[in-house]
Amino acid sequence: MTTADDFSSAFLSTPGNITSKLGSLVTLANVARFPGLNTFGISMARIDYAEGGLNPPHVHPRGTELLYLEKGSLYVGFVATDNKLYAKRIKQGELFVFPKGLVHFQLNVGEGPAVGFAALTSQNPGTSQVAKALFASMPAIETAVLSKAFQIGDGDVKHLMDVIAKS
Amino acid sequence: MTTADDFSSAFLSTPGNITSKLGSLVTLANVARFPGLNTFGISMARIDYAEGGLNPPHVHPRGTELLYLEKGSLYVGFVATDNKLYAKRIKQGELFVFPKGLVHFQLNVGEGPAVGFAALTSQNPGTSQVAKALFASMPAIETAVLSKAFQIGDGDVKHLMDVIAKS
Amino acid sequence: MTTADDFSSAFLSTPGNITSKLGSLVTLANVARFPGLNTFGISMARIDYAEGGLNPPHVHPRGTELLYLEKGSLYVGFVATDNKLYAKRIKQGELFVFPKGLVHFQLNVGEGPAVGFAALTSQNPGTSQVAKALFASMPAIETAVLSKAFQIGDGDVKHLMDVIAKS
Amino acid sequence: MTTADDFSSAFLSTPGNITSKLGSLVTLANVARFPGLNTFGISMARIDYAEGGLNPPHVHPRGTELLYLEKGSLYVGFVATDNKLYAKRIKQGELFVFPKGLVHFQLNVGEGPAVGFAALTSQNPGTSQVAKALFASMPAIETAVLSKAFQIGDGDVKHLMDVIAKS
Amino acid sequence: MTTADDFSSAFLSTPGNITSKLGSLVTLANVARFPGLNTFGISMARIDYAEGGLNPPHVHPRGTELLYLEKGSLYVGFVATDNKLYAKRIKQGELFVFPKGLVHFQLNVGEGPAVGFAALTSQNPGTSQVAKALFASMPAIETAVLSKAFQIGDGDVKHLMDVIAKS
Amino acid sequence: MTTADDFSSAFLSTPGNITSKLGSLVTLANVARFPGLNTFGISMARIDYAEGGLNPPHVHPRGTELLYLEKGSLYVGFVATDNKLYAKRIKQGELFVFPKGLVHFQLNVGEGPAVGFAALTSQNPGTSQVAKALFASMPAIETAVLSKAFQIGDGDVKHLMDVIAKS
Repeated sequence: MTTADDFSSAFLSTPGNITSKLGSLVTLANVARFPGLNTFGISMARIDYAEGGLNPPHVHPRGTELLYLEKGSLYVGFVATDNKLYAKRIKQGELFVFPKGLVHFQLNVGEGPAVGFAALTSQNPGTSQVAKALFASMPAIETAVLSKAFQIGDGDVKHLMDVIAKS
Repeated sequence: MTTADDFSSAFLSTPGNITSKLGSLVTLANVARFPGLNTFGISMARIDYAEGGLNPPHVHPRGTELLYLEKGSLYVGFVATDNKLYAKRIKQGELFVFPKGLVHFQLNVGEGPAVGFAALTSQNPGTSQVAKALFASMPAIETAVLSKAFQIGDGDVKHLMDVIAKS
Repeated sequence: MTTADDFSSAFLSTPGNITSKLGSLVTLANVARFPGLNTFGISMARIDYAEGGLNPPHVHPRGTELLYLEKGSLYVGFVATDNKLYAKRIKQGELFVFPKGLVHFQLNVGEGPAVGFAALTSQNPGTSQVAKALFASMPAIETAVLSKAFQIGDGDVKHLMDVIAKS
Repeated sequence: MTTADDFSSAFLSTPGNITSKLGSLVTLANVARFPGLNTFGISMARIDYAEGGLNPPHVHPRGTELLYLEKGSLYVGFVATDNKLYAKRIKQGELFVFPKGLVHFQLNVGEGPAVGFAALTSQNPGTSQVAKALFASMPAIETAVLSKAFQIGDGDVKHLMDVIAKS
Repeated sequence: MTTADDFSSAFLSTPGNITSKLGSLVTLANVARFPGLNTFGISMARIDYAEGGLNPPHVHPRGTELLYLEKGSLYVGFVATDNKLYAKRIKQGELFVFPKGLVHFQLNVGEGPAVGFAALTSQNPGTSQVAKALFASMPAIETAVLSKAFQIGDGDVKHLMDVIAKS
Repeated sequence: MTTADDFSSAFLSTPGNITSKLGSLVTLANVARFPGLNTFGISMARIDYAEGGLNPPHVHPRGTELLYLEKGSLYVGFVATDNKLYAKRIKQGELFVFPKGLVHFQLNVGEGPAVGFAALTSQNPGTSQVAKALFASMPAIETAVLSKAFQIGDGDVKHLMDVIAKS
């Protein structure tokens, strides 16, 4: 039987443990983790940033993101399809919107940790972290694609594959 | 020229001054106040609650609402179309989702003020506060409708019109 | 095997028996009762009104309603999100449109019964009768919410719960 | 200033004068004639049929149609994309649904006139009467297309062009 | 397990064998034949035309069509809801768009065969060939509908039924 | 006045001149270049590949792409949100579908040039070439973001910025 508990979730109530080299952790309450969101076309994430932490360039293929910065200072931005960068520093309490399908990022540029809450316009927005999609996919993209796209040698591609896989 | 500032807003950064008898204040960053949301189908509100404050029963005709409770304890709920109430107490850090077009409310049941951030699935979700729509519309709904709907006398309707207009 | 019968329905062909104190009866051919509507995003209702009968203030969370008045005279209206009332009397043969998610009503103001046919922009538009959602939900909304929203005492809330449950 | 009158229309309140050889008249309250429908995704038509009158095979490119037969008896049907015909006789008070973009028709098979009210899932559903689209378009489709499609001679095509233009 | 093969198809790689009297063959890679298209809202067809071949007047109830002419010359067109014909000759390499739900056709007016590739805005756009829907549906539409719609005698209707069934 | 010419375009009829180091050229008939596509939700591109040419990793934020390979052999693929690569070689006449918002690419692996035609599910799908969005945006993304995301030094970031800007 459906109850009120089905429409609530404590999934975002506690900060996660940041273990990646990037210094950030995204905890996403999507429909898989919060089934009550089904058919509602919305989800929410909390993003914890260590000092200097980066939520690296990524895209959400199925959702625009509206970020509310609860604590800290971030350098945030996205790159539009004309390759123009829209980036700025935002402070605690400010909002920033990242359009669906565009590469975007946030870097903690304040002292101490930061935390943001992001609403997304899909119950299953998906995330593709760009550096990992390119250099750490499973299986790997053939080297010829990456060396040509980045205008680097095969050795450089292999090096990027190594370090990005561990990030 | 469009700049990064167009995609950010400080509209929710400061708590509003709660002046209504209801003891709550909703500050909504919709497309009218944050034009950068245009075409994105999302908006965000901050809701400040005094101790005992109520965000009274209302509907959003064009948006489902996903509430994140930043601080405090709330009694929240909505009434489905089979007239079943889905209501519970939620604590700091928890989420609750209110489906589009259904009557819902939040009451501060903790000590001290509370504050929540709500994402809505429209850049212009709209709000209709039910008691005010019924008893304080401009112009007023004819008394016969309200006395019959609430099974009360005309005098009671007039009394409700008086007190709700001031709430 | 699908046949032409699956795309037709006699569900609205006979006037219902009006038994409620409100003096109206809505008979809705939605996808549950007329499965052939599936995926088509439309449904239709007939609304029978006794003399003086009221279709009380309600919202359809998932559908705009376009009403055709087959017989009689109605006082109809809806309340927009700026709390402005749009209401008027309509005569036989006239149309009136009630936007999705807004509180609206119809009152029979002519002599004798009236009947209307309403198309709705969903195969499952849903209805929330506002007085019942507030004062006769199952289980009941906590009294504190209602007494504060309507600025009345707990005794008055209990009285409304009693009479509305029987309406 | 917007008033309640903007949300009502008397466009369908009187039967039209049937002058075509086909013996039917469709009066459509779409957004061009009833501007209050704008953004609502719905429209309504009244269809008057003389005895033996035909609403000839046509498609609505942008709308599914849900027909309520207020008076009379009709032979109605549509042809699905597997070329299967779904057709039957319907009586006063019955509903029939015609899916978007499929060829459909109604023939008055009762005694005396008939009248139906049809809701469509677009404020601008459009109508393409098939015989006229093929044989009476402006300018005409080249004869080679029609003679081949219908496996008839050029003379037969010309004859059909003549009689259909006058229907 | 899903693999890259699920997202590719060779369904359009070879020209079909044109056996109809009309002199054309449409091969459609829709979701039934290319399951990887599921949820993507797109499909593609190849259309092979013999010299003088016709893709006869038809509608796609659920899709707009964008045609790229790979080889040959076609006379193409559609009829809008105001009964205006938009038709012209197109050459190899040109595009033409046919709006959803409107009657349209292509006739090979060049020397030798022609071939086009058409994208459609649905994974299951459907096709209703108009002459066949009218005169060769299963079961047949009652003769009274067709004789009245086309202003011809019953014998002519029977004749059209015979020849169109074999086309 | 609107004519049939408004619904056709020769924009894709001739191969472009490939001048980039990447060895490919995308010519996109979107609504800006082919205004007749307005409101139709579809566009088409031709993609010319020199021998060994690469259409480098990119995303379409507003469109799924269905590619038909007219000539040649390609190594194509996309990376899903679980970082799994779906890639394979396709031959002349084959189709491949790239879901909206996911990083994807095509590399000419055959002898001589190749050419494909791609339909996209938007009249304005947009393209963000990933390497350029990251390393050649205007203005540049702050180096700290890129060095951390790719786990490389600032000098390596500058080098990538130089070579990618010229690619």
